[in-house]
Amino acid sequence: MGRMETTQPGDLDELTAGVQALVPILGQMGITIIDASHGRAAAVLPAGPNGNHFGTTYAGSLFSVAEMLGGVIGFNTFALAGFVPLVKSLDISFLRPATTDVTATTSLSEEEIARIEAEALATGRAQFVLEAVVTDAAGEVVATTSGVYQLRKF
Amino acid sequence: MGRMETTQPGDLDELTAGVQALVPILGQMGITIIDASHGRAAAVLPAGPNGNHFGTTYAGSLFSVAEMLGGVIGFNTFALAGFVPLVKSLDISFLRPATTDVTATTSLSEEEIARIEAEALATGRAQFVLEAVVTDAAGEVVATTSGVYQLRKF
Repeated sequence: MGRMETTQPGDLDELTAGVQALVPILGQMGITIIDASHGRAAAVLPAGPNGNHFGTTYAGSLFSVAEMLGGVIGFNTFALAGFVPLVKSLDISFLRPATTDVTATTSLSEEEIARIEAEALATGRAQFVLEAVVTDAAGEVVATTSGVYQLRKF
Repeated sequence: MGRMETTQPGDLDELTAGVQALVPILGQMGITIIDASHGRAAAVLPAGPNGNHFGTTYAGSLFSVAEMLGGVIGFNTFALAGFVPLVKSLDISFLRPATTDVTATTSLSEEEIARIEAEALATGRAQFVLEAVVTDAAGEVVATTSGVYQLRKF
């Protein structure tokens, strides 16, 4: 995932279509963006195309809906032109099986956004950690992630 | 991923077809199993269906080809009936961009296999760690993973 060139705040359908076109496997998973506001990102992963042999949602799809938030949060968060977030590493814990559509959410504080912007402007790159939570339709947490991303001049 | 009911050692085409049928998103990624022998597992992820907006392979697909080895290694490694491996957590590091087909490989030592079997038989479950390496067509390591799995009575 990463920053796209044209971003209309609030135009989530267009963002989803753009992401699905640029990263086709996310389209196969049916991932849709439901929040891409300043300092926040969220996306939904439907159960349908992502099942496994246990009748639950495949681990790689849960990883993907959380990981791609690192790109989505870039759309309307950083006051920087031409920078994209790249994922460097990610830890995921699977807490319980997911059997419904799930929602992944993440956020960055204003202080952290300011630090990232200042560091990226000064050095051409800035590392940041994004914690995401994946919840099912009942609000139960099915997975948590901690990803290290690098915002860098593209 | 997990153990399948019918396993013919060496019948990699059938194993691949079975996995792609049971976990359809792995089929969309085009993942094929190239090794499922005792204590070893390997799979190939083609670049084609797994591209991203940087012209490299999407992080979630690299995660998947490594993660699913935890199921593949179960096919011909453990002398246990009715046990399946479940992934509990996984850490992945992305070391360089992947632009070619990649191969994920992993193995377990005889000592570790014996420990896992003994513990699973005694308690109904056994935790184990699987380290996998993902390499590109030039043999360069593009990602490494460390996954915690639990072999448990299904």
